[in-house]
Amino acid sequence: MNTFAAINEIITREIAGIDLNKQPEGLYAPVVYTLSLGGKRIRPALVLMATDMFGGDIHQAVGPALGIEVFHNFTLLHDDIMDKAPIRRGRPTVHVQWNDNSAILSGDLMQILAYQLVAKAPVAHLPEILNLFSQTAAEVCEGQQYDMDFEDRSQVEADEYLEMIRLKTAVLLACSLKTGAIIGGASAKDAQLLYDFGIHIGLAFQLKDDLLDVYGDEKTFGKKIGGDILCNKKTYLLIHALKLTVGEDAQALQKWLQTTEIDDPQQKIDSVTGIYNRSGVRTICEDKMLSYYEKAIADLKQIDVPEENKRELLQLAAKLMDRKD
Amino acid sequence: MNTFAAINEIITREIAGIDLNKQPEGLYAPVVYTLSLGGKRIRPALVLMATDMFGGDIHQAVGPALGIEVFHNFTLLHDDIMDKAPIRRGRPTVHVQWNDNSAILSGDLMQILAYQLVAKAPVAHLPEILNLFSQTAAEVCEGQQYDMDFEDRSQVEADEYLEMIRLKTAVLLACSLKTGAIIGGASAKDAQLLYDFGIHIGLAFQLKDDLLDVYGDEKTFGKKIGGDILCNKKTYLLIHALKLTVGEDAQALQKWLQTTEIDDPQQKIDSVTGIYNRSGVRTICEDKMLSYYEKAIADLKQIDVPEENKRELLQLAAKLMDRKD
Repeated sequence: MNTFAAINEIITREIAGIDLNKQPEGLYAPVVYTLSLGGKRIRPALVLMATDMFGGDIHQAVGPALGIEVFHNFTLLHDDIMDKAPIRRGRPTVHVQWNDNSAILSGDLMQILAYQLVAKAPVAHLPEILNLFSQTAAEVCEGQQYDMDFEDRSQVEADEYLEMIRLKTAVLLACSLKTGAIIGGASAKDAQLLYDFGIHIGLAFQLKDDLLDVYGDEKTFGKKIGGDILCNKKTYLLIHALKLTVGEDAQALQKWLQTTEIDDPQQKIDSVTGIYNRSGVRTICEDKMLSYYEKAIADLKQIDVPEENKRELLQLAAKLMDRKD
Repeated sequence: MNTFAAINEIITREIAGIDLNKQPEGLYAPVVYTLSLGGKRIRPALVLMATDMFGGDIHQAVGPALGIEVFHNFTLLHDDIMDKAPIRRGRPTVHVQWNDNSAILSGDLMQILAYQLVAKAPVAHLPEILNLFSQTAAEVCEGQQYDMDFEDRSQVEADEYLEMIRLKTAVLLACSLKTGAIIGGASAKDAQLLYDFGIHIGLAFQLKDDLLDVYGDEKTFGKKIGGDILCNKKTYLLIHALKLTVGEDAQALQKWLQTTEIDDPQQKIDSVTGIYNRSGVRTICEDKMLSYYEKAIADLKQIDVPEENKRELLQLAAKLMDRKD
């Protein structure tokens, strides 16, 4: 078994090795920039760890691993245009550093590059891996559309929110794991169990993100605390707070949601956080997160490989739940 | 041999049969709309005609044929955002009918759909066809970037322009033909000859477009005559006119290029057309177009199949050169 650290080293080296020194510069420079911004590189690590877990050759999985990471970065690039986000990983977003047209076209190119890398999968598994990747990519678009649709709606149900984050976040983590499992020679049953593990970890991961936005530590979180609150994002916390608050808290929450001119952002963040605390939605969100985490662990338990082969993945899952950023 | 008409019927039916009745509606409706706008469907026809030419089963080529057509329509969708184009095929563009975000995301989905369709290629040929498609798709992005770059430059050389239209237009026609040839069982040499035929026809096709914009008949052309002149597009005609005009014509041309407020668009179109006529650039463009057409015919001649198998393709090439829209 390779350690997570060893796998991460391979990925960092391989990403740096993608040949993007091409013309026209206006097209390729934003791609180089985007891939140089870093990030946790969790998805490609999951691909390689899954291959490793079934005793496969991780070098056969490098192409698809990079392809999924490039695809993930492409979605961030296009999402940032749609959300008019100025900053990504502490640096100006591509549409700010260049312009919208550059961001659209370089993103399109990244999606093609992603497919070029996924297509390096061992030819015996290529059709299955390609279909899984395309299916997943389409689902990620569906998730982004639901996310945008929800912004314009006054009410969103918790189940709708969970389905949205399943599509927008969880399926790509699950696809990463299943891709690695297929290359590693897993049985169809085990590959599906690992996919399910990915879905459950992905849902827990996004609920953790919702919690960190409110209860994280600004120094380690890497972005401003309260961003979701300020833009009225219908997170799992807000959706439940809207259902559970009564009396003064309910009125205050509605007032904050309807106020478009905010003089003191911190006041809104503190006030809404107080409402979350009093209505108990933090616990509801933490419980839901933990229930998905437990489901993920149960999926992993059923997989037919020696327990020691699961250790790295179990550790990574625990780390993701316990993370501060 | 299937006739072009018979092949077109298959394509129309198959495009209508793509299952896009999915949720969320905001994501899929723009895709349905885009594919319902029609168009000449030349690229998928070329795929099937190429397979047919080598005696292959055209039904094996339907997936990649549709994939290339969906990809082409995706590029138009995203190009229309970048160009802020209000109209496409007589109807509002997607970013006007919906909004920019919808157009970006639905375009992204169309690129995925294109790959899903291309991936239906016979598995024995899948890696080769997939690599050709990705390589071509990246080149189309490069062509679009050069096209945008040229807008901001005061001078563009004829050779640079030809390289730009090779990337933006010709390679996808060539890719269509080579894809069909591969599925039809062509030798590597014949597949490459058909690719070269596609490049030459593609270059001629785009030069024809440049000519139609100035010398076409508005009724049959389907869009306003003089569009390229009004937006100072550096076409093959303008690039040569800038080199060849002297004296009063040179001054008048510069004046029109620098005037941002145009009271009477028709006056600019008539004046620049007059300058084109007097400087002989129409003939230069027509000669270049014909020289590419002749190269294409020479490529086709060398392909090792019975002459009768080439007839439909020869007829289509002649029709494209002689077209009014």
